[in-house]
Amino acid sequence: MASVDVPVALLGYGTVGAAVNRLIAEGADEIERATGHRLRVVRALVRDADKERGFAADGGVLTTDFREIVADESIAVVAEVMGGVEPTGDYVLELLRAGKPVVSANKQLLARRSADLFAAASAGGVQLRFEASVCAAIPVIKVLRESLVVTNVHRLLGIVNGTTNFILTRMEAGASYGEALAEAQRLGYAEADPTEDVSGADAAAKMAILATVAFGSRVELGDVSYEGIEGIRPEHVAGAREQDAVIRLVGAATLAGDAVDVRVGPVLVDRHHPLAAVEGAFNAVTIEGDAIREITMAGPGAGGIETASAVVADMVSVLGTTGTGFLQNDAVWRRLDRLPPGDLPCSYYVRIEVSDRPGALAHVAERFADEQVSIAQLSQHLTNGSAELDVVTHTAPAGRVEAALAAIGRLDDVRSKPEALRVISERGI
Amino acid sequence: MASVDVPVALLGYGTVGAAVNRLIAEGADEIERATGHRLRVVRALVRDADKERGFAADGGVLTTDFREIVADESIAVVAEVMGGVEPTGDYVLELLRAGKPVVSANKQLLARRSADLFAAASAGGVQLRFEASVCAAIPVIKVLRESLVVTNVHRLLGIVNGTTNFILTRMEAGASYGEALAEAQRLGYAEADPTEDVSGADAAAKMAILATVAFGSRVELGDVSYEGIEGIRPEHVAGAREQDAVIRLVGAATLAGDAVDVRVGPVLVDRHHPLAAVEGAFNAVTIEGDAIREITMAGPGAGGIETASAVVADMVSVLGTTGTGFLQNDAVWRRLDRLPPGDLPCSYYVRIEVSDRPGALAHVAERFADEQVSIAQLSQHLTNGSAELDVVTHTAPAGRVEAALAAIGRLDDVRSKPEALRVISERGI
Repeated sequence: MASVDVPVALLGYGTVGAAVNRLIAEGADEIERATGHRLRVVRALVRDADKERGFAADGGVLTTDFREIVADESIAVVAEVMGGVEPTGDYVLELLRAGKPVVSANKQLLARRSADLFAAASAGGVQLRFEASVCAAIPVIKVLRESLVVTNVHRLLGIVNGTTNFILTRMEAGASYGEALAEAQRLGYAEADPTEDVSGADAAAKMAILATVAFGSRVELGDVSYEGIEGIRPEHVAGAREQDAVIRLVGAATLAGDAVDVRVGPVLVDRHHPLAAVEGAFNAVTIEGDAIREITMAGPGAGGIETASAVVADMVSVLGTTGTGFLQNDAVWRRLDRLPPGDLPCSYYVRIEVSDRPGALAHVAERFADEQVSIAQLSQHLTNGSAELDVVTHTAPAGRVEAALAAIGRLDDVRSKPEALRVISERGI
Repeated sequence: MASVDVPVALLGYGTVGAAVNRLIAEGADEIERATGHRLRVVRALVRDADKERGFAADGGVLTTDFREIVADESIAVVAEVMGGVEPTGDYVLELLRAGKPVVSANKQLLARRSADLFAAASAGGVQLRFEASVCAAIPVIKVLRESLVVTNVHRLLGIVNGTTNFILTRMEAGASYGEALAEAQRLGYAEADPTEDVSGADAAAKMAILATVAFGSRVELGDVSYEGIEGIRPEHVAGAREQDAVIRLVGAATLAGDAVDVRVGPVLVDRHHPLAAVEGAFNAVTIEGDAIREITMAGPGAGGIETASAVVADMVSVLGTTGTGFLQNDAVWRRLDRLPPGDLPCSYYVRIEVSDRPGALAHVAERFADEQVSIAQLSQHLTNGSAELDVVTHTAPAGRVEAALAAIGRLDDVRSKPEALRVISERGI
């Protein structure tokens, strides 16, 4: 097949942009073999064309004028690697409307403006791909949209924030939360202000994107309830170990009938679950569906070259599907309600400090029974004058478990607020 | 976009074929959303059209005449789900030459005749896809060919046989090899004659396919050296546990300079390696490359519906890329030599029974030193009158380690042939 020279452009030329340019230059032969096209970065939008860059662009490539990209009819696809929501979103909208396919690495943009973006892509008759916006080089979006088309995906569980996963695995090795966070900051895994990561907010944005694609229904950032790992202490890690489990910050998107629940929080993961094996700053996603049972994909969830690899893969996929109508639909095709939070079936691991006197255990058990929450496992550890109850419940609606915990917290026998972590189980989370 | 009705055909209508038909019928809307096309199975080649089938085909679909498929110009893609090498291979060649894209689930066909098949696909100007030939629903081939185009993949490690993985995880739970095999047979994971699985031959065929795609160089079944799990005893499993590791039957495809090594055998996998978490009849593949560090994909490696899911995904991908030139190249684009087997860098775990007398340990250590094999870890367990040495070597060329082991076997102090298992390490296997 005759090789065709294909000019492409970048919005942004920072770490990821320069890595995209390098991968395209060094991988030109591989791309040509797969697609029949030879890619060449002909324009890259920057704020200051004179700034020095890691992998230098060819002379004349850097530009500060967006018009030079949108007006250049030869440009076949544009990769957005500049980040931010404004003015980035407006640039992307204009490109799509002008009939240019766009590949984006921008989680915040996708989590906040996907409705507009997909409408513009449909209007322009072009694709919008965004593999790099979630889990860097792990091709979750491609697998969901291209390999699992006929599998009714009913749950997606993800470790989608590497910083918190690093902190939690360091805590398993004996570090305190503060020590682990400081180490993450020293290694560059965590920002000076780590709030976005440790609060679960970053994971929530990624889960909004993944849930939207998995279920074909718009899930926005505001639909995702999240909780962070700031409250996790060594006792919780030790308690998990006694249950032959580990603690992970897990995003869970669940399809329950015609409703959807998406949440992020620290949960207990049984040591035999694939997500328990995800260590350090890695990410992983487990997709559960009718025809596939479950598929887990794991790998580095961040990094300039890893993100660039996903951007280039999307550009290759755009070239490989242009003109066929493939994936030119909005990823959203149905409206699903939000499941009332109390309705989601959950199994809980609960730690309760009680007085060491006859009847305390029975009182606790009664409160669970009052809410029809069945107990899967209960153990009592005695210390000086007090006792700790470790309870794992069977799967029950979250609202009932929470009501039982509130009632338990009011018992005279109970010394402090019961602490609860959800547990990944077959039916709920 | 206007919906286009697309007739497709199947070669074979057994468990997988019937499941493909069902997924296409039930997933028609989903496929149309993704591709703009409505698929319909219009022909399925069978030996006996009157036999009853699980998910019945529409009247007139089943045929015993291959001509009806190859001559029907309306048929846009054919899925080969009949198995066997002959006459299947000839059918597929004829279809490709006639310009019909083919999707195949046939591991033996791909491992034995991929050169002819790809030549025919190139001649016909159409795609040959074969996701379902390896690891059922886990989309390893798609990810290698579409997502990792610009990543120089240098190693691929796979647990690609579910039967042996089931047996090995049962042995970890305390079963003997015989008990675990019998259980696998009872559950339908192993055949009455389990040789193909337990000998590593099945895994070798899959590794030939994966290595070919990963490195773009033809690897045939005969190029893959393999060893099975028949010799694994509870002592080995216990020994692995002491090293904080598990035993897995791992296929390893390694690119070393301009040479390739592909092998299958039982190896020690550190508990923190992603492959150690793969339990039961699941499969998993870890792909190591420049831009991605490593990506692991895990899921069910067999099953009718799981395999059918991959077949349908390939059909969707063919439709989504038709006319673009995408992946119409032979997956093979370079010729790489076979690495001489002794040259591959390996780390070994070795168990040696020695007499409990002064000097035995020193003699063993000297033999390793003679071959310049450096020892990473050594422990000695004493029992009545004899001792067991557990040695883990640093990475060294396999040939040197084997020479050291042969020399150790000849020592007077050594009571039985040293037993060695390779260990997954960063540089070798």
